Amino acid sequence: MEKFEVNILGCGSALPTTRHFASSQVVNIREKLFMVDCGEAAQLQLRRSKLKFSRLNHIFISHLHGDHCFGLMGLISTFGLLGRTATLHIYAHKELERLLEPQLEFFCKGMSYKVEFHAIDPTKAEVIYDDRSVSISTIPLRHRMPTCGFLFQEKQTPNHIIRDMVDFYKIPVFELNRIKNGEDYVTPEGTVVPNNRLTIPSDPARSYAYCSDTICHKSIIPQIKGVNLLFHEGTFAQSELARAKETFHTTAMQAAEIAKEAEAKQLVIGHFSARYEDESILLKEAQSVYPNTLLAKENMRIIIN
Amino acid sequence: MEKFEVNILGCGSALPTTRHFASSQVVNIREKLFMVDCGEAAQLQLRRSKLKFSRLNHIFISHLHGDHCFGLMGLISTFGLLGRTATLHIYAHKELERLLEPQLEFFCKGMSYKVEFHAIDPTKAEVIYDDRSVSISTIPLRHRMPTCGFLFQEKQTPNHIIRDMVDFYKIPVFELNRIKNGEDYVTPEGTVVPNNRLTIPSDPARSYAYCSDTICHKSIIPQIKGVNLLFHEGTFAQSELARAKETFHTTAMQAAEIAKEAEAKQLVIGHFSARYEDESILLKEAQSVYPNTLLAKENMRIIIN
Repeated sequence: MEKFEVNILGCGSALPTTRHFASSQVVNIREKLFMVDCGEAAQLQLRRSKLKFSRLNHIFISHLHGDHCFGLMGLISTFGLLGRTATLHIYAHKELERLLEPQLEFFCKGMSYKVEFHAIDPTKAEVIYDDRSVSISTIPLRHRMPTCGFLFQEKQTPNHIIRDMVDFYKIPVFELNRIKNGEDYVTPEGTVVPNNRLTIPSDPARSYAYCSDTICHKSIIPQIKGVNLLFHEGTFAQSELARAKETFHTTAMQAAEIAKEAEAKQLVIGHFSARYEDESILLKEAQSVYPNTLLAKENMRIIIN
Repeated sequence: MEKFEVNILGCGSALPTTRHFASSQVVNIREKLFMVDCGEAAQLQLRRSKLKFSRLNHIFISHLHGDHCFGLMGLISTFGLLGRTATLHIYAHKELERLLEPQLEFFCKGMSYKVEFHAIDPTKAEVIYDDRSVSISTIPLRHRMPTCGFLFQEKQTPNHIIRDMVDFYKIPVFELNRIKNGEDYVTPEGTVVPNNRLTIPSDPARSYAYCSDTICHKSIIPQIKGVNLLFHEGTFAQSELARAKETFHTTAMQAAEIAKEAEAKQLVIGHFSARYEDESILLKEAQSVYPNTLLAKENMRIIIN
């Protein structure tokens, strides 16, 4: 199965603790790396993760609170010191470019590569990135400022050819691509060999949704329906429901309700409030609604199967 | 003895490693905290150090390379979230204010406290901070951009009164301050009691110099003469001397020569190049010239006696 993994670099919230780094993660799809959020020290955590810096070309920023983007300057600057040449694409609210511009100009003058900003509209669900392996869309969320999540949808790979059948029917090479893509084979004698005799279906396409920061916002459910893995913020325990609402955050239990209604295959909660020395209360509350829940943790790698 | 300690938060150089954080340290003088440099994740390390955030009111930035100042926004922002009210004073090259201004405006709007920038001239040795405990001066250095170190000079505390002698001579209370400050006592009968019979001298004033980043620059020696502790960058081993010169950095051995000529009581080297998995080569080379040398290390606290 092709690689589809989520690497948690940081899953704390705004206040620093000795237990968590600020929000950042890297989605690895077939060895292409996509960073989601880039809180302070994301580059240190990226180094720790042993992921290859050179495979990271795209960064997606959910919103412009410091704990989701203060790591950008360090990362951009380090890429420059390493002599990177590939353009780095940053997808974020349009304000970000203006905010970083003076520092880029000063700290990164004469850098060996380009930083390209792509303004996203967090109020709309739309495809903002697309290649032959994956399509990435915004998920409109509700927070104290314009914010969106990101939905990663893998593209189905072609079917696998059964070598023995190709030999048996003496199928010419130029027919193989069409067969991989699902067509039947017609022999020179006019016999139709159905595709399912010639191929094994490829693995079903997988998907991953990242939803942070947001108040509990059920309108996202249709868009993330059936997702293989849902990362949803679960900042607070249920006892802090009022605080969650007031600050436009979600409780762990609410995250679980969303996972359940969205029929996500698995839920991972993160963006933990600094008040929890031990997040097992959050896990317990979430699992009471949706058992297949994990607590995010720094340096955790979740394999999506 | 009053507290005078240096807390190393980070002692790596520009490239992130899993062993070191970027440059930052906190000088604790009588429970007033002075931060020197503020590389990325300084606030995380400050949290780890258990030093009180509220006692930090002054930050000194040696120069505007990212590994010495990218932690500022996170720290400033966290102070805001914590409801800080005291003004935070930042001493740095004047460019810094312009560079941070758009981000301060955006991320820290409505913050409960003020950030005040003090422009320093890194080409001059001058006092930039002074209170009743300490005086802090710039030390002009030579790097690829305007850079200065900082010299912390403790002020001598008054002598300690010997209680028994005060009782013996029946010295009135209003005379005590003058005696603490070194004056003799004249009895009503006109007898002069010399100060050294009445007091025990206070501990000698101590000093600390921070010199990073810089090429080996012996002109600093007169200014740091006899310093109790010298932190000097020792970025490279002697085999990289050419590289050190080219990048305006110092080798560990050169740092030791400076410590020796300056008659520093102790040397601590830091700002280690990412190429050294193990810095013992740097320590060995420095100690061959100046035995009383330490390797800086994250979370190390050096007490100046």
